[in-house]
Amino acid sequence: MQKTRIKTYDRIVQQSLTLFNEHGERSITTNHIAAHLGISPGNLYYHFRNKEEIVYQIFLLYRGFITERLAVPQDRAMDVTDLVNYLDTAFEAMWRFRFMFYDLPGLMARNPQLQRDYHQFVHNEMKAILEGHFREFIRLGLLQMALEDIEAVSINIWLVVKFWFAFEQTARPNEPINEASGHRGVRQVLALLKPYVSPEFLPLFQQQLVRHLQP
Amino acid sequence: MQKTRIKTYDRIVQQSLTLFNEHGERSITTNHIAAHLGISPGNLYYHFRNKEEIVYQIFLLYRGFITERLAVPQDRAMDVTDLVNYLDTAFEAMWRFRFMFYDLPGLMARNPQLQRDYHQFVHNEMKAILEGHFREFIRLGLLQMALEDIEAVSINIWLVVKFWFAFEQTARPNEPINEASGHRGVRQVLALLKPYVSPEFLPLFQQQLVRHLQP
Repeated sequence: MQKTRIKTYDRIVQQSLTLFNEHGERSITTNHIAAHLGISPGNLYYHFRNKEEIVYQIFLLYRGFITERLAVPQDRAMDVTDLVNYLDTAFEAMWRFRFMFYDLPGLMARNPQLQRDYHQFVHNEMKAILEGHFREFIRLGLLQMALEDIEAVSINIWLVVKFWFAFEQTARPNEPINEASGHRGVRQVLALLKPYVSPEFLPLFQQQLVRHLQP
Repeated sequence: MQKTRIKTYDRIVQQSLTLFNEHGERSITTNHIAAHLGISPGNLYYHFRNKEEIVYQIFLLYRGFITERLAVPQDRAMDVTDLVNYLDTAFEAMWRFRFMFYDLPGLMARNPQLQRDYHQFVHNEMKAILEGHFREFIRLGLLQMALEDIEAVSINIWLVVKFWFAFEQTARPNEPINEASGHRGVRQVLALLKPYVSPEFLPLFQQQLVRHLQP
C-alpha cells in the first residue's frame, strides 16, 4: 500500500510538470491532472491539498537538480569543459522546468511558500555557488577578471538564463519554445563570459560557442 | 470643442499610464480610469473603444520617446557621455512606462495590435539602432570589439534592460520598484559593456559606473 501511495505521488508530480510545461500552469487544474492520470480528484486530494503544493514539489525537484549538477567536483580540478557544462545544466534546468519561467512573478504571487523558498535558494545559495565557481575559474587561470566584477557578471548571467525563454517568447511570438531556443540562450551566456576568457583557453571556448550556434 | 476633446484624450492616456504604473494594467478598468478623471464612462468610450486602445496609445508614446532620445546627433561626434546617456534613456523609458514590463508576454497576448507593432519596433527598428550605435562607438575608438560580437552583446543589453524590473521584483519581493532599481539596472548594463571599453576611456566610464552605484 505504501509503495502504491508513493508511486501515485510521484506520478502526479511528473505528469503535472509535463502538463504545466505544455499548456502553462495557469490553464491546468487539479481536475485536468487527475483526468490525465486516470485517477479520481479525491485520490489526487489525498496526496495534495491543492495545485500550489504540487508546484512546490516541482520546485524542490528543480532545486535538487541544480544543486547536484552545479556542485564543485571534489576529486579533480575544474576545466573549461566544466564551465560550459554548468551553463548547459542551467539551461537544461530551465528547459525541464520551463513552465516556472513563463511568468515567474505571477506564479510566486499565487504561492507564498514557493516565493519564500525560491527567493532564499536563488539569492543566498545560488549566488554563493555562482560566485564560488567564478573565483575557482579565476584561480585556475581560465577566466581573467577583477574580483569586484564577479557580482555584476554573475547577476547578468543569472538574469539572461532566467528570462531567456520569456525573451524568446516575445521575440518569436509565433514559434514554440524548443531546444534551439535553449542553444541560443547558452550562446548569449557564453557571449557574456567571452571577454573574460584567458587567451590560451579562447580556442576551446570558441569551439563550445560554435557547438551552440549549430543546435 | 475640438480643443476639449483633444485635452480629454491626452488626459485619459496620461492618467491611465499613471494608474497602470501604480497598480498594474490588469487591475485597472476603464471605469477606474473614468472615475479617476472625474468623467463618465460614456465620455471615455467616446474617445477609446476599450482599454487595449489606451494601452496601444501609451506604447506609441514609449516608441516616440525612445526613437527621439536614441537618435544619433547630426551636428557633432558622439562621445562616452552619449554612450551612458543612451543607457539612461533606456532605463528612463523603462521607468516611465514600467507597467508594460511587469508582464509583457501577458500584456501582448491580450492585445494583438500591440504585439505586432511592439515586435516590429524592437526586432527591426531597435535592433538596427542599437547595432548602428555600436558600430559608431567602435569607429570612434570608444569600444574595442569584433563586429561579429555586436549582435550577441546588443541582445544581452536589450534583455537586461527589458527584464531588469521583473528581475528586481523577484529578487526583492517586498520592496517597491523605485528609481534605485533603475540605477542598479544601469550598473548591470555598464558591466556588460565594461570589458569592451578602450583603456583610455575606462576612467571616464568608471566615473559613470560609480555615479550609478550611488543613486
